[in-house]
Amino acid sequence: MSAPLSLHPDRFFPTDEGSRNIARRLFALAAPLPIVSPHGHTDPAWFADNHCFSDATSLILTPDHYLFRMLYSQGIKLGALGISDGSGEVATARNAWRCFATNYHLFRGTPSRIWLDHLFAEVFGLQVRLDAQSADHHFDTIGDALRTDAFRPRALLDRFNIECIVTTEGALDDLLHHKTLRAAGWGQRVLPTFRPDDVVDPDRAEFANNVAQLATLTGETTSRWSGYLNALRARRDFFRAHGATATDHGHPTARTANLSPRESQQLLDVCLRGTASPDEREMFRAQLLTEMARMSIDDGLVMQIHPGSQRNHNLQLFARYGRDKGADIPAPTNYVQALKPLLDTFGNEPKLQIILFTLDESTYSRELAPLAGHYPALKLGPPWWFHDSVEGMLRFRRQTTETMGFYNAVGFNDDTRALLSIPARHDLARRIDCAYLAELVATHRLAEDEAAELIVDLSYSLAKKAYRLS
Amino acid sequence: MSAPLSLHPDRFFPTDEGSRNIARRLFALAAPLPIVSPHGHTDPAWFADNHCFSDATSLILTPDHYLFRMLYSQGIKLGALGISDGSGEVATARNAWRCFATNYHLFRGTPSRIWLDHLFAEVFGLQVRLDAQSADHHFDTIGDALRTDAFRPRALLDRFNIECIVTTEGALDDLLHHKTLRAAGWGQRVLPTFRPDDVVDPDRAEFANNVAQLATLTGETTSRWSGYLNALRARRDFFRAHGATATDHGHPTARTANLSPRESQQLLDVCLRGTASPDEREMFRAQLLTEMARMSIDDGLVMQIHPGSQRNHNLQLFARYGRDKGADIPAPTNYVQALKPLLDTFGNEPKLQIILFTLDESTYSRELAPLAGHYPALKLGPPWWFHDSVEGMLRFRRQTTETMGFYNAVGFNDDTRALLSIPARHDLARRIDCAYLAELVATHRLAEDEAAELIVDLSYSLAKKAYRLS
Amino acid sequence: MSAPLSLHPDRFFPTDEGSRNIARRLFALAAPLPIVSPHGHTDPAWFADNHCFSDATSLILTPDHYLFRMLYSQGIKLGALGISDGSGEVATARNAWRCFATNYHLFRGTPSRIWLDHLFAEVFGLQVRLDAQSADHHFDTIGDALRTDAFRPRALLDRFNIECIVTTEGALDDLLHHKTLRAAGWGQRVLPTFRPDDVVDPDRAEFANNVAQLATLTGETTSRWSGYLNALRARRDFFRAHGATATDHGHPTARTANLSPRESQQLLDVCLRGTASPDEREMFRAQLLTEMARMSIDDGLVMQIHPGSQRNHNLQLFARYGRDKGADIPAPTNYVQALKPLLDTFGNEPKLQIILFTLDESTYSRELAPLAGHYPALKLGPPWWFHDSVEGMLRFRRQTTETMGFYNAVGFNDDTRALLSIPARHDLARRIDCAYLAELVATHRLAEDEAAELIVDLSYSLAKKAYRLS
Repeated sequence: MSAPLSLHPDRFFPTDEGSRNIARRLFALAAPLPIVSPHGHTDPAWFADNHCFSDATSLILTPDHYLFRMLYSQGIKLGALGISDGSGEVATARNAWRCFATNYHLFRGTPSRIWLDHLFAEVFGLQVRLDAQSADHHFDTIGDALRTDAFRPRALLDRFNIECIVTTEGALDDLLHHKTLRAAGWGQRVLPTFRPDDVVDPDRAEFANNVAQLATLTGETTSRWSGYLNALRARRDFFRAHGATATDHGHPTARTANLSPRESQQLLDVCLRGTASPDEREMFRAQLLTEMARMSIDDGLVMQIHPGSQRNHNLQLFARYGRDKGADIPAPTNYVQALKPLLDTFGNEPKLQIILFTLDESTYSRELAPLAGHYPALKLGPPWWFHDSVEGMLRFRRQTTETMGFYNAVGFNDDTRALLSIPARHDLARRIDCAYLAELVATHRLAEDEAAELIVDLSYSLAKKAYRLS
Repeated sequence: MSAPLSLHPDRFFPTDEGSRNIARRLFALAAPLPIVSPHGHTDPAWFADNHCFSDATSLILTPDHYLFRMLYSQGIKLGALGISDGSGEVATARNAWRCFATNYHLFRGTPSRIWLDHLFAEVFGLQVRLDAQSADHHFDTIGDALRTDAFRPRALLDRFNIECIVTTEGALDDLLHHKTLRAAGWGQRVLPTFRPDDVVDPDRAEFANNVAQLATLTGETTSRWSGYLNALRARRDFFRAHGATATDHGHPTARTANLSPRESQQLLDVCLRGTASPDEREMFRAQLLTEMARMSIDDGLVMQIHPGSQRNHNLQLFARYGRDKGADIPAPTNYVQALKPLLDTFGNEPKLQIILFTLDESTYSRELAPLAGHYPALKLGPPWWFHDSVEGMLRFRRQTTETMGFYNAVGFNDDTRALLSIPARHDLARRIDCAYLAELVATHRLAEDEAAELIVDLSYSLAKKAYRLS
Repeated sequence: MSAPLSLHPDRFFPTDEGSRNIARRLFALAAPLPIVSPHGHTDPAWFADNHCFSDATSLILTPDHYLFRMLYSQGIKLGALGISDGSGEVATARNAWRCFATNYHLFRGTPSRIWLDHLFAEVFGLQVRLDAQSADHHFDTIGDALRTDAFRPRALLDRFNIECIVTTEGALDDLLHHKTLRAAGWGQRVLPTFRPDDVVDPDRAEFANNVAQLATLTGETTSRWSGYLNALRARRDFFRAHGATATDHGHPTARTANLSPRESQQLLDVCLRGTASPDEREMFRAQLLTEMARMSIDDGLVMQIHPGSQRNHNLQLFARYGRDKGADIPAPTNYVQALKPLLDTFGNEPKLQIILFTLDESTYSRELAPLAGHYPALKLGPPWWFHDSVEGMLRFRRQTTETMGFYNAVGFNDDTRALLSIPARHDLARRIDCAYLAELVATHRLAEDEAAELIVDLSYSLAKKAYRLS
């Protein structure tokens, strides 16, 4: 017999009675608030087409690198999880699910486990824990549900009380699905984000082609620095016309630069020719961050910077399976020197809103909170990726709030492609904020009326304001 | 109606009954102890002249960069806070206070809020929370009090039970106010610190002039390395004669060096000529730390090193408003390699006492506690600046005590120019130490009789001993 | 009168009633489990010869650098602790003990204090706290006990319920004591570890001599790269034949390399001639880590890497007293770039098991948990050295588990030469794991049946599995 599965109403709250009661009262205010999801990676085609999802494995397991990175680390082959390397031998959806279920104990103590249990219990009403025995029961229950109208993508947005969800697209994207959504009256509900990494990062193999395609799309001469910038501006306008309120930049570092147009043209030349040195490619990206900030002041798009991930660290896995296979590893990231060129120019601009993220928690108290606690143009994004977890979120609050306060942060991002886990992720984030605020109230560092105001801001209002969502 | 304001007697203590009771018993021992403030930035003129302070804004708001950095980060102009850029348009004291009061919610969760509430409630007897409505009431109540004799600076030292307060002066300071204080019998109560940054840091614009002035003051040929060192020795003697027991060094890094007199002379030459490279300027400062240690062995002055702050990070703000406007940002700081030249020479000297500070908390457990837990010449200063907070102080104890014990730390520093907040800061530090010790006792890691001894050491005795105050 | 000494049955458990009860139930499962000690520095001669130990000072105080580093940091001379610099003037064992006892308060809040109190109370039945007054009582009680058969080394292994203890030997070691132990039927109980630092680290003064001796031992031409590798293979085989299941590598950094045999031969040449630059010596060590991984895939030895300690940081102390005098200081350590060459080649090898350690806690969440949570060949070792403490172990769990789960860690290492403290160290580690698991259960992040399974894994099974102990 599989063990019972249920979600405790006091989960993640402090264990002492006094603090727990405060957390309960705060959560009663947070729980009914709509979900605002201002940054993530769901597929806009889901909402545009509104087709049924097919099965548990392809919806829950295969796209989630949190899940297969852990299973892979314990010696399980990707093929056994239904992930093909193009050469054959891939488990069926059911067998992949069974493998996952048999190894579900590996996720003990991780946020994936928390999100999945929430999803099983709340979204599908499952009442036993996933394990080898219950694998088929889960697979079938989920599969049956997914074939019903109540589990179509748009119905899930309603059911999950998602007021607004934002997707992420490359600069060359035609935003076809967003057009469809606008035509169907869902344009306020599902918005795109402008993520130009493919046309600003010379380390990508297809960089020169992408820049050429940018020319075709915009009619600009993108081999000239001024034409290249004009083309970027045109794409930003195109995204804004389709509802975008933000850009996103996934650079390996946070380095920025302040070069002359002439120097920039020279960098563009060598990058397009493919003869740029690593330093020149880094400087090109650095200059582009500054250019993006300049354009943001003009067009009002909020600027997100997600630096510090060394992508595709596993050479063999990358060669065989390609990108995004759970082998992206954070590296030490510097902000104080790296951002200075940009901040020297635009740090005091009231119209500029930059949201910084980090994978290097040692920068929370040393660099990021002091920077965000001073510069009007800077805010600090919520705990990112590995740190979107119980302990990670507590470390974030404990290490940043005392220096930058609550109002230089921007509420929660779920940053996920796992649609079904979105309510779980917001539930967890809100509960951890309740726990943290309850602790402040219980130790007399904050009055409860203030905590009550804050929990609404942290759960809902700050995200809307920071991302300029109306 | 503004919300009520009161200080809870159990504030900052653990929330479980058993630990809280231990904390209460320990705090009963700590609360009556006099305040020893061995490092800070109050103005000795206050105590020498003993004039009344003028108003809430100029005493509490304008000089406190913790306050205006936060307000500035949220888009409030410095002029609205009463800080002039010399070009006009500055709010009146009352209007600046109103702006501060209206935005008081920005400080939720910060130590500034804790200190301010303590100050309002304890020092001025205010019974409502500061907000837009209560702004004038606070401003007037504080203003009225400040005009009474009971709020003159010396009366406040008595009222606050401050046994000893130490100020900080540049190497060229005439210590006039300290002379006045000695003549008035207050020479044991208010002491200077020798902070020679202005004559040892070639990055300061006025460096060469300062070194020339050093020659005038001492009669030494300060363009010669030996004369320059003699002049520094003379100034140290002058400070010692006026009660100083310590020096302080605010270098950008903790780098030390062990150069020959010939190499040092060459560095002094280029630094005075203004032709030194950044590396040469860094090496000059590095050599000076070693020289200061050598002199400390001779004259017994305790040596404080405060490295790792990148000053005036905001270029535009610095150009317009000058230094110390809340734009000093910590940077990663290395100690293990940086201090080695100094420690190779003097690390085992029983007469040398170096107190190290950091803004880079990642060094607590990795570098600083291992160094202070081995070298007889090294002690670790309390959490500095942003880290002088509830969570910051707990991180300090948790990350250093297990490796270096309690006795390689030096008690508390308030390090403030905010005179009225000194009782609040010591109250908070003592309470956090009570909380930490209570946790050790409640988890059976320490006996309560030992915690009782320790709380007196941490609150009072260690600071006196470490700073050689009699 | 000295204060009473007793070990509280709930020590180190959470203080709230609910969590404490869970911790108690979990500890009831952990307490009876045998001790597996897969990495440490006890002397195999003890178990081979089975002679009585002589006295408290030479067994407990003199070999323990945790103890004398703390005492030394507070100005106590090593001679007063019975440690000779070869020039005379050393305290007698009794006087050294008295000095230690008089300064026992320095260890308040440290793990040494916890281990020692456990040792005094549990191993020797002492009922008062160590201090100046009780010094002789402790010294005599311990001395008397040590002269009895019940305190001979093998009897202690039985009494401590140590199923298996692993020692650490250089590559040239003749494993004479392990031969003796095998002959006496203790070969499964006391095992060696292959630690080749003396023949792979060109920074050691005796490196060239050691490599020559390696030739003599193996009959290989160790000045040729292929012969050198063959010789290392031969020594690994020799260790395996004497029961070794693991190697250990104490490099200054985690740097690895992937050089050609020709490049490797050139490095070997300059290293043997003593003309290698620091970079060349670093590259040589880096290449050797990759070679050791390659050999581990062939022979199945588990590979431990302990990087990041700057050895003998105190120049004067090293000159006078030699190695291992408490002056080893951690430095910032990078893993993501450093390990890439090795991982590019062998990171996906199912037969390879690398156990990584760190002294740089900032790498837990940023680098190590993401790496171990992805690469099949990598596991993360328990908190090392200074971090083998209450707070250090909690930080380890909190900062790694959410990203890599429990099963990419390897259970506990005591890593000690202090035989008598081994039960105390495992007791502490198990209790902290109980405390952490209890917290997960009490906050509804884990079910209690899962915690019950985990505590057995963390206390016993994972160490056996990770080190391939049968």
